[in-house]
Amino acid sequence: MNDKYTIAIVGATGAVGRTLIKLLEKSSLPIQELILLASSRSAGRKIDFLGNQLVVEETTDESFYGVDIAFFCAGGNVSKMYAHKAVESGAIVIDNSSYFRLEEDVPLIIPEVNPNALNNHKGIIANPNCSTIIMLMALKPLLNAANIKRVIFSTYQAVSGGGNQAISELEGQIRSYIEGENKEAKVLPVASADKHYQIAFNLLPQVDVFDEGYYTKEEWKMIKESHKILGTKEIGITGTCVRVPVFWCHAESLNIEFESKINREKAIELLEDFPGVKVLDKPEEQLYPMPLDFYNDDNVYVGRIREDNSLPNSLNIWVVGNQLRKGAATNALQIAELIVKKNLFVMDGINN
Amino acid sequence: MNDKYTIAIVGATGAVGRTLIKLLEKSSLPIQELILLASSRSAGRKIDFLGNQLVVEETTDESFYGVDIAFFCAGGNVSKMYAHKAVESGAIVIDNSSYFRLEEDVPLIIPEVNPNALNNHKGIIANPNCSTIIMLMALKPLLNAANIKRVIFSTYQAVSGGGNQAISELEGQIRSYIEGENKEAKVLPVASADKHYQIAFNLLPQVDVFDEGYYTKEEWKMIKESHKILGTKEIGITGTCVRVPVFWCHAESLNIEFESKINREKAIELLEDFPGVKVLDKPEEQLYPMPLDFYNDDNVYVGRIREDNSLPNSLNIWVVGNQLRKGAATNALQIAELIVKKNLFVMDGINN
Repeated sequence: MNDKYTIAIVGATGAVGRTLIKLLEKSSLPIQELILLASSRSAGRKIDFLGNQLVVEETTDESFYGVDIAFFCAGGNVSKMYAHKAVESGAIVIDNSSYFRLEEDVPLIIPEVNPNALNNHKGIIANPNCSTIIMLMALKPLLNAANIKRVIFSTYQAVSGGGNQAISELEGQIRSYIEGENKEAKVLPVASADKHYQIAFNLLPQVDVFDEGYYTKEEWKMIKESHKILGTKEIGITGTCVRVPVFWCHAESLNIEFESKINREKAIELLEDFPGVKVLDKPEEQLYPMPLDFYNDDNVYVGRIREDNSLPNSLNIWVVGNQLRKGAATNALQIAELIVKKNLFVMDGINN
Repeated sequence: MNDKYTIAIVGATGAVGRTLIKLLEKSSLPIQELILLASSRSAGRKIDFLGNQLVVEETTDESFYGVDIAFFCAGGNVSKMYAHKAVESGAIVIDNSSYFRLEEDVPLIIPEVNPNALNNHKGIIANPNCSTIIMLMALKPLLNAANIKRVIFSTYQAVSGGGNQAISELEGQIRSYIEGENKEAKVLPVASADKHYQIAFNLLPQVDVFDEGYYTKEEWKMIKESHKILGTKEIGITGTCVRVPVFWCHAESLNIEFESKINREKAIELLEDFPGVKVLDKPEEQLYPMPLDFYNDDNVYVGRIREDNSLPNSLNIWVVGNQLRKGAATNALQIAELIVKKNLFVMDGINN
């Protein structure tokens, strides 16, 4: 394997793609070349990378020759169409879409949580859902000390999770409100859905489309992906996903029931010792995590840690993480760094 | 008792007071005279009532002579100072502050939930916390069919709960954002607290001041007031209260564990049959309650009703209600209407 890597980003003009480009500028990953790919609509656009203007190219079957690591940051359809082509071309794919996440042969990785699942990858590695990553970063350190019986989540999800269009939609609705106009909603809750609702000054209790049992796909992602990443279906996980008029960071209110007691002090200690997690929890100083503070941050923040008054061995916590960073681009980049560190470029049946 | 009543509103210029004045215009309560009271700072202001300009007077010990029903819609300090004076003057006090809510002799009333607790009042009747009312309006119809073991709430609370100042603060921050300026936070999360944080595009996991066990007072209100209203401490209640950048309506994500099974269909039936509750829950048509839709509405809306995949006999639901209406002014007015209907003006030891 060479010591410098050719990297491709599919969906380079999207919210996650752009965040990843910025992160790659400061990453320790040795980069030979960065190839920016997108749909034909975005081809030709220029994006700055380390002072150079890179031209975005249209993604084709031939885009991946010579690529070592391909980050897929577009929708599931794009991953479906090109991920296997990329692997056949010799690239390792780190896919940010939900398309491959629950496939048996595809490791679903949060480097701090289940790094060893990466070892037997077959070329495609899935990056989990943003809300899943943020939740598990807070659960894993606690789980290391006491088995978890059940988790109930309520999410407060930023519009960045809906991509550039959703970010623009909130911005546009705010401007219209100030100008006394009314701007029609066209993107949220789901761009492809029949109905769209205003997000400014509103709450949308629908993230992604509806699925089995009246749950949304986002809710099932948090449940099923967590089970896969933690390697157990024994933990009961349920909850409700809600889009809120916040630009950048997701927040989650979690109630966690353990098999044995973890008090507040112990929980703080466990969380503080876990890489990528910071505790911000001093009620006497009104210190707790708020989305506005973590626009430019890779950590997941935990606060409002309290023993649950309603049930023994339970805690309530409040978690905030940047959806585009640790919830997406940062986690994908960490997977790439782990592949390099562990030299996992040689795979079962595939050599590149 | 006369057939027309003299009504006083203390805190008439506040967000709840103004809402109550509007509701009184359309109420069936026969009104002899409406007296608007406030602090000396607001005295002299004029407020329209049924086409007449009423002048706001300063609240004093003498304000309540001849008053039949006094609504207190100012803070706990004002209730502490004047509520007993009002009762001594012969008025029945309906207090919207938290000051008397947990006192043994003071009924804490949601007319649809515990109307009979009103019967033995001693002159002061407390109106519950807004989030408590909205939660219990959804729980009570379910509780009528199966005992509840445990409830976990996560709230999404509008700025209107912080009064006129908090509403102006969100509005001002939005304007500043559009104008590219930065407007210092001065009101939220708690006006009297040391630190204030931006609410626009943010989430504040603190509603009211911090109290015992690292819970906020708002969280304890939801727990303790619910126990008092439902007449049992056997129901485990816990959760997290969060302020969100929404103007008017509170929302709550609730997980409810029952002693026996209530499925989705049964829950919908029970909720639809309960006065003041509407079910809005058609995922196939993307129908669910959203705060923006209920600016002018007295009902509590329930949607996203699902059997909990993690535990038998449990449901997840999503509840939205107008904090200033059913969460405050509407409920207070309903208490007054119930007093008139039941002719509860003659009290134990007090006749007026």
